[in-house]
Amino acid sequence: MANHQIQLMNEARARASFDSRELTHLIYGGAEAVQVRNVAFARMEKALHSSATNKLPAVLGEAGRSAQYMDGLQFGQAMLKERLVNGQSVFDFMTPRYYFANASPFGLHFLMFIPALKLLGSPEQLAHWVPLAESGKILGTYCQTELGHGTFLRGLETTAIFDKVADEFIIHSPTISSTKYWPGGLGYSSSHAIVMARLIISERDYGVHPFIAQLRSLEDYTPLPGVELGDIGLKLGHNSNDNGYAVFTHFRIPRTQLLMRNAQVLRDGTYIAGTNSKLMYGTMLFARRIIIDSVYFQLAQAATIAIRYSTVREQGNVAFDASESAEVPILMFKSQQYRLFTIMARSFALLFASKHAGALYEEMIAQQANGNNSMLPHVHATLAGLKAYATQTSADGAEDGRKCCGGHGYLAMSGFGNLVPTVTAMATLEGENYVMYQQVARFLVKCASSRREDLHDDLQYLLSPVKTSISAGADFLDPGIQSDVLLQRALCLVDEYAEALRVSQTRDRLSPAQAWNLHMMGLISAARAHIEYVVLDAFITAVRQVKAGPIHNVLQRVCSLFALSCIESPQGLGFVGDRSLSEHHLRRVRTAVNVLLEEILPDAVALTDAWNFSDASLESALGCRDGDVYERMMRWTRQVPLNLAAAKTGGVFRPGFEQYIRPILKGKL
Amino acid sequence: MANHQIQLMNEARARASFDSRELTHLIYGGAEAVQVRNVAFARMEKALHSSATNKLPAVLGEAGRSAQYMDGLQFGQAMLKERLVNGQSVFDFMTPRYYFANASPFGLHFLMFIPALKLLGSPEQLAHWVPLAESGKILGTYCQTELGHGTFLRGLETTAIFDKVADEFIIHSPTISSTKYWPGGLGYSSSHAIVMARLIISERDYGVHPFIAQLRSLEDYTPLPGVELGDIGLKLGHNSNDNGYAVFTHFRIPRTQLLMRNAQVLRDGTYIAGTNSKLMYGTMLFARRIIIDSVYFQLAQAATIAIRYSTVREQGNVAFDASESAEVPILMFKSQQYRLFTIMARSFALLFASKHAGALYEEMIAQQANGNNSMLPHVHATLAGLKAYATQTSADGAEDGRKCCGGHGYLAMSGFGNLVPTVTAMATLEGENYVMYQQVARFLVKCASSRREDLHDDLQYLLSPVKTSISAGADFLDPGIQSDVLLQRALCLVDEYAEALRVSQTRDRLSPAQAWNLHMMGLISAARAHIEYVVLDAFITAVRQVKAGPIHNVLQRVCSLFALSCIESPQGLGFVGDRSLSEHHLRRVRTAVNVLLEEILPDAVALTDAWNFSDASLESALGCRDGDVYERMMRWTRQVPLNLAAAKTGGVFRPGFEQYIRPILKGKL
Repeated sequence: MANHQIQLMNEARARASFDSRELTHLIYGGAEAVQVRNVAFARMEKALHSSATNKLPAVLGEAGRSAQYMDGLQFGQAMLKERLVNGQSVFDFMTPRYYFANASPFGLHFLMFIPALKLLGSPEQLAHWVPLAESGKILGTYCQTELGHGTFLRGLETTAIFDKVADEFIIHSPTISSTKYWPGGLGYSSSHAIVMARLIISERDYGVHPFIAQLRSLEDYTPLPGVELGDIGLKLGHNSNDNGYAVFTHFRIPRTQLLMRNAQVLRDGTYIAGTNSKLMYGTMLFARRIIIDSVYFQLAQAATIAIRYSTVREQGNVAFDASESAEVPILMFKSQQYRLFTIMARSFALLFASKHAGALYEEMIAQQANGNNSMLPHVHATLAGLKAYATQTSADGAEDGRKCCGGHGYLAMSGFGNLVPTVTAMATLEGENYVMYQQVARFLVKCASSRREDLHDDLQYLLSPVKTSISAGADFLDPGIQSDVLLQRALCLVDEYAEALRVSQTRDRLSPAQAWNLHMMGLISAARAHIEYVVLDAFITAVRQVKAGPIHNVLQRVCSLFALSCIESPQGLGFVGDRSLSEHHLRRVRTAVNVLLEEILPDAVALTDAWNFSDASLESALGCRDGDVYERMMRWTRQVPLNLAAAKTGGVFRPGFEQYIRPILKGKL
Repeated sequence: MANHQIQLMNEARARASFDSRELTHLIYGGAEAVQVRNVAFARMEKALHSSATNKLPAVLGEAGRSAQYMDGLQFGQAMLKERLVNGQSVFDFMTPRYYFANASPFGLHFLMFIPALKLLGSPEQLAHWVPLAESGKILGTYCQTELGHGTFLRGLETTAIFDKVADEFIIHSPTISSTKYWPGGLGYSSSHAIVMARLIISERDYGVHPFIAQLRSLEDYTPLPGVELGDIGLKLGHNSNDNGYAVFTHFRIPRTQLLMRNAQVLRDGTYIAGTNSKLMYGTMLFARRIIIDSVYFQLAQAATIAIRYSTVREQGNVAFDASESAEVPILMFKSQQYRLFTIMARSFALLFASKHAGALYEEMIAQQANGNNSMLPHVHATLAGLKAYATQTSADGAEDGRKCCGGHGYLAMSGFGNLVPTVTAMATLEGENYVMYQQVARFLVKCASSRREDLHDDLQYLLSPVKTSISAGADFLDPGIQSDVLLQRALCLVDEYAEALRVSQTRDRLSPAQAWNLHMMGLISAARAHIEYVVLDAFITAVRQVKAGPIHNVLQRVCSLFALSCIESPQGLGFVGDRSLSEHHLRRVRTAVNVLLEEILPDAVALTDAWNFSDASLESALGCRDGDVYERMMRWTRQVPLNLAAAKTGGVFRPGFEQYIRPILKGKL
């Protein structure tokens, strides 16, 4: 018989206005894609013994560093098997539990090692290395970051000095700060790496170039002479990955292991400059593209867990007296609706923005194949900005979803124990977000003084005149109005700070760098405003393409909530004052938001179902589809290793009692 | 010889305009208090072998669940020794590493068990139990929260049925959701607990009452018959504490273990109602008071680590071409200054707000001793609101400080691995923040229609008329103006939503609960605005009391930055539009902020020094006082247990290689 929580969940699910399976197809690109995906997930979960929801997932038990690494190797191996044996690539960047390759020691093999090889290697090099990598005969990672140097490529210190006599490069770490530090899988899992180092010939420094190096024996995996390898220790998350360090001491590789698609070094030491100095950024672009296409899943997972939990968790409102204290599901409270539906809306917004960015990226790749690099600055800025926006939005949303689950959200078994630190990592890796926004701002400032015919459609609006007002009776549920408000904000901010930069340089005679530094916070807010407009525009466009019917209607509401929460939210500051919106407008926005929350409420659980997360992939006692929260929590709690161990010794944790507690009780401190 | 990073740190420290030791005295209440504190910390760190900064702290190594619990027992025991043997109470609520009692299995003994006993026990009960507890002969915790019930006291399900024949109470968990769940130290560390349960006599339910129960044998710590005890498993943080669960099955305690200072049950089953039904909230008030007085230390730790790291970490600005790419300490970038100095300013703001709240609390306790409870509603609202504001501010700030350290901030050895999850826990425990703000809002709405003579000084402003504008030439560095802006925002919002509630009830005929739900988000923003005004007011008042001189000047700047970041920050939305500030004003605010950042920069490191954190208590390779970041990181990295183990087997992690990697390389998947 269904208990009370299961009943609440069934009732909530039955209220939906649409068929969640149809929306699933829209998310993943059709019924067939969903079917293939479901089969792959089922196979993976079988291999990992993770499908039984009555068992505490092993990784939530004892979870020491080595155990977590072994766990990562296990699902990393299963992921490779999917690719190599079953031809399934969905797990290249996702795993059932973690939804991102950074969790697996072999994640960078597909995310960066192979793409970088393909991008940077000459045809002969590709012919040699790619088959080895794609068959799993070698396992690679990508070595760029150093202990003292991150995103700033030109600051790297590792040297690769050409030894003409031996026809070799000597890779060397000249300082402590040049230690390669952070690459995923570098500690103990990778046999090879692409190493970024300064190419030096006859004492002349040609700047940073890519090299491929074998780091470990393929027989017994001992490090080759001249390289010290190790793990960088516990992290806030991703401990299933052995992010590592490498210290090179006059480590030799053949000259032919400079990746030579672009620049080349000949046998006699002649350096032939490449024609495309931007090629090296390709790997970064690809990685950011994948990040953007991953984090909204994590955000949607957070929304799923928290909405389902809020559907069955009951509480009275403590702000009232006993007379009004009937307990209701906490999703009935407006603050809970606002927070959770907004998180859900953002996950859809990022989904559609990612599809938009993916199309742009593919268009650029196609043009580049024909030698046309003209889209690069636009795509670079869009991916940098979306990377910052999507990761920050997802990190904030996941953490707020955690808080929406109250104390229980703090348990590892809530699912947030892995989710929050995993998604929050994305805000700093592969480009710190404040740096990303500055790159967008720099691009926008340039665009603002460009000719119309040089600008991509997405950027045309930057040449429009700033409008001053929106009518008092504006309908904020109209997507046209919503889009216009975000457009105006972006336009105003870009205008304001482009002008501020100009004035600081001309009137106040600051250098470009000084002027930039002075207006940095404003420029970042302009970049963010632009990206938010791009995201909304992608969402609105996607909804327009859905045929009339229940799916269209629910997405329309979710899209409106996203738009209005951007306008009304803390970041909405730029809208008000002398600009387009008055306090009167904001009151209308707040009223519209309340209407939307009311309309979305019956569809809340169906929206979580639409993402089609398997219970195993959520790894959450709070977020399972059936809503059976308390029974499952107690079942999992009783399986905690500490409890199983104590049960064998009379319900006492003996080592702790003997060593610490007994002396206290006996007064023997 | 000092390396480059140490030199950068020395130079930065030398630029200070004030003596950091003087500010230390101000923070901790005088030179003598600082001296006593330093001695206690040195003794504690010696006991825990944690003072050597060239060693990787053990807890950052392997860190499985049991190891973390053993670690918690170790410092919990050391903490008890400080109290019982050395008479030092500073560690009752702080430990050298974690700065909060929730990290230790014995933390609730002093934080809740003893205070609750004192508050709720009759004189005879105190005479019996308090000496046992204060000597450490029993170790107690506080059992309120249940699996299905949190802050909402009236929802608790555990029953205590009076058995007149045996003169006993029968404590029982009638449902799964009534399982006691979460109390710190309940799993395996506590011998006794105060248990909140519904008192039932002859089938009549008298509501929730406090009972004291022995849970484990004092001889061998086995659970007594009728209670199942265990750990609730891994959490996002605080894994050194065995937060636990308890299932009671007709568990019997003597009638005299109902804590009877208030209500009593006589031998014949007669129930004598207490005169003070609010007494039970006293423990919650005390716990919130301690939380408010703890979290700003964690925020200050985050600021300390990130400012020191940013002083020695160098990077070029990637937004520029190579020609402008000189590497500078990242603290030179305005975005880094804005984020970090704001975090530092908030830690000072919360310090002074906590001192203000502490004084209020003490005043109330003194009045209550004379039978006067009139301050309770005000103190309750202030502590609830400050609890929400302080914990959210600290959690957000700690996480942003982590992000300011880029990728390295994600390492456990950054110090953020413990800090971020520890402080973020505070936002949900002991009262979820959105619930806390609603309690404040409810109080404010009442006050807004009170008579002036019934309001405490802090609340008088609620009866002022709303002003409409601030002059165009307003000096935003003037504390009077700053305070006025925050006051006006709070006043407007309280006014607006008190009126909205009234209209919804009278015109739209909603019930009080419906009206409240409709305007919930607005009411929460009104409460937050009030609390932010209270915090700024406390900061301004504290700065005024510092005598003229360098300390006064630096605190004045920090206070101004706090005020202006409240106005200009995302939460500043309520200032604009039809209200008091225009876009023109905001531009003036931004200019003033830039001036403040410039002025605070030379004092940044000295401000971190003023908090007087020992290196051991920061547990951070990035935040040590000497600035020697890279050398220390590599030293600690090489001590990672995984690396020490692999070094013994040729630099290979054998179990992983044999089980997972070799089969991949050999194509045997």
